[in-house]
Amino acid sequence: MDIQHLQFADRFDGISGSAIREIFKLLAVPGMISFAGGNPAASALPDKACAEIARELLLDKGKTLLQYGATEGYAPLRESLVPYLKDRFSFDCAPDEILPVTGSTQAMDLLCKALINPGDKVVIENPTFLGNMQCIKLYQAQLVPVDSDEDGIRVDELEEVFKKEHPKMLYVIPTFQNPTGRTLSLERRKKIAALASRYGVVVAEDDPYRDLRYEGSELPSIKSFDHEGWVAFMGSFSKVISPGLRVGFLCANKTLLRKCTIGKQSSDVHTANLNQAIVDTYLRRDLLMPHVREICQSYANQMNTMLGLLAKCGGVARYTRPQGGLFIFAELEKGMDAVKLLQTCVDSGVAYVPGTYFYAAGGHENTFRLNFSMSTLEQIQRGMEKLNQIFTANKQ
Amino acid sequence: MDIQHLQFADRFDGISGSAIREIFKLLAVPGMISFAGGNPAASALPDKACAEIARELLLDKGKTLLQYGATEGYAPLRESLVPYLKDRFSFDCAPDEILPVTGSTQAMDLLCKALINPGDKVVIENPTFLGNMQCIKLYQAQLVPVDSDEDGIRVDELEEVFKKEHPKMLYVIPTFQNPTGRTLSLERRKKIAALASRYGVVVAEDDPYRDLRYEGSELPSIKSFDHEGWVAFMGSFSKVISPGLRVGFLCANKTLLRKCTIGKQSSDVHTANLNQAIVDTYLRRDLLMPHVREICQSYANQMNTMLGLLAKCGGVARYTRPQGGLFIFAELEKGMDAVKLLQTCVDSGVAYVPGTYFYAAGGHENTFRLNFSMSTLEQIQRGMEKLNQIFTANKQ
Repeated sequence: MDIQHLQFADRFDGISGSAIREIFKLLAVPGMISFAGGNPAASALPDKACAEIARELLLDKGKTLLQYGATEGYAPLRESLVPYLKDRFSFDCAPDEILPVTGSTQAMDLLCKALINPGDKVVIENPTFLGNMQCIKLYQAQLVPVDSDEDGIRVDELEEVFKKEHPKMLYVIPTFQNPTGRTLSLERRKKIAALASRYGVVVAEDDPYRDLRYEGSELPSIKSFDHEGWVAFMGSFSKVISPGLRVGFLCANKTLLRKCTIGKQSSDVHTANLNQAIVDTYLRRDLLMPHVREICQSYANQMNTMLGLLAKCGGVARYTRPQGGLFIFAELEKGMDAVKLLQTCVDSGVAYVPGTYFYAAGGHENTFRLNFSMSTLEQIQRGMEKLNQIFTANKQ
Repeated sequence: MDIQHLQFADRFDGISGSAIREIFKLLAVPGMISFAGGNPAASALPDKACAEIARELLLDKGKTLLQYGATEGYAPLRESLVPYLKDRFSFDCAPDEILPVTGSTQAMDLLCKALINPGDKVVIENPTFLGNMQCIKLYQAQLVPVDSDEDGIRVDELEEVFKKEHPKMLYVIPTFQNPTGRTLSLERRKKIAALASRYGVVVAEDDPYRDLRYEGSELPSIKSFDHEGWVAFMGSFSKVISPGLRVGFLCANKTLLRKCTIGKQSSDVHTANLNQAIVDTYLRRDLLMPHVREICQSYANQMNTMLGLLAKCGGVARYTRPQGGLFIFAELEKGMDAVKLLQTCVDSGVAYVPGTYFYAAGGHENTFRLNFSMSTLEQIQRGMEKLNQIFTANKQ
């Protein structure tokens, strides 16, 4: 039988490759100034430190690290995450309420695996991170978008949706959100924890950018206001140590975490031990926060430079002013189309991601996302100048 | 709302933790001789080599390895797998027909994700590897077990099942099968490739033990007889380099592989780059096969010692005589129960896995699986002597 007759599973209906991936292909041109990605700067990746740590770990306990590990995770890492979570995210958590995962994307996948039946409703911020939207869609959930404003997702709307739609889960990025860069206010954090437990909705709190704060004060996590276990917290070391190592973690109520652990058993058995041990070493030796402070210094400069230039950029109606993270979200003047203008920009050597892809139902063609972490100050200058020229020339 | 009211997804109905995991908990006793696991020997794990390779890789291209990688995999590894597959598994495959994955368990998961709707039928060998049975069950497929004999899965029965049941997939471990240690004959390999394409069934060929051959001649993979792309080949470096690194790969028809790649995007984005690069280095520098030959020497001794003692072991009616791999499968005399006897064995300091867990519908309580890779010759002597005493004392 011709393999063309092969039928794929229904979960792939309506799923294509990500539009963003297609954009990234456009960018493989030498000299391109890309504000499109969301990667850490090369200078933020601690290659030399990791080289020595990896060697030391393998010489010291290589027989353990190269052997099968427990699905539940590398025990020293689970232990060193406890004070880290208390210190950085303001919540108490025992080692057996923590599951190290293969990047926090896997935390999302495992939560969906544990909870979602086809047709279940999952509330998301509008706009939100494309990757996890796709993850939720592959579990054939129905996305219920709720708008956000300067203070993050609108909790008044959220309560209405919880009441009427009985969703299974809320997916939210509370700090320096992707793509908007906005941070959920303290009041709303408390309110979301309360609503979750009032209406029995699991909150998937995704907080990978938190440590990248350049100004303002830290806020406690939503999970720190959770008394009954409805908030599942997903953390990541991709933005502060290395995305290539693929280490994140999930903190959740034990019963839920047990289902996720059984799910993980047949996803990838366990997260690679060496990778978990490298992160553990960063935590144990207090290497993480000094490294983060270094990164933040240059990212702050990059962000502020970009914000300064955005203020003078033709055609830009408004933009967010994040206190940290990797992204700024901007809106062109009425009638302008960031999707259509992208090709012109790419031809002239600068790129961004049109905002439309981050909205569950599309639209918002006048919006776009800018990343500043991967460009030097000089690239930001030149790139923003190009955008200024093109947007000015295309004003309606 | 009390978190106890949380409803989990239907895919977890009837799924509990693995019974084998419960057994492993019994084994955490100092001095226990365990024939229960399936891990490589500690001496087979190249800790010193990996320490130097990891350091060198991170110093040399750490900025690339620590950055996000492509979901499609680390390009050098995809390239170095091409000649490896040709040489070791006798099939031609282009780099873009290969997807590096986070252990070959993830290959199984992605194939199911791409292909399986609830209620679809998946044919498995009876008995077979518990982990992947659970993976298939989590996709709510219906398992259709087909018996095996000394030459592997019975292809006469298989054709009947393909005709009548229209399964979506066949899962098969052709070489030194887990748990039986049996190898699928050349004729049956050819026949399975032909049947797959005649009836339009995807074959998930899982071949992690192949390189661990201690006698006899190698056989080409089922995939080497596949002309239309119905065979998906899952490979692993867990048994020959390290399970803790979590690196395997999937080779499949491009359309199928594309779906698996989209599925992987939201499973874990990509497999950790450093881990892929370590395996790539093993292949590129021809370190793999010399290392494998070393391992095989000691495993062959261990297997032959165990086989010799099994021949004299009271209560044992028959057992398989593998030419490689990690496992021997044995049958007690009628009326004896390997499940019930396990506690007595563990109390006396020796453990195995009852065979019943490897059968889709249970039963076969007189069977058990023995692993020899993790025990020294002396431990095998002592452990088999204990089994001999207990089995002899419990003969009916």
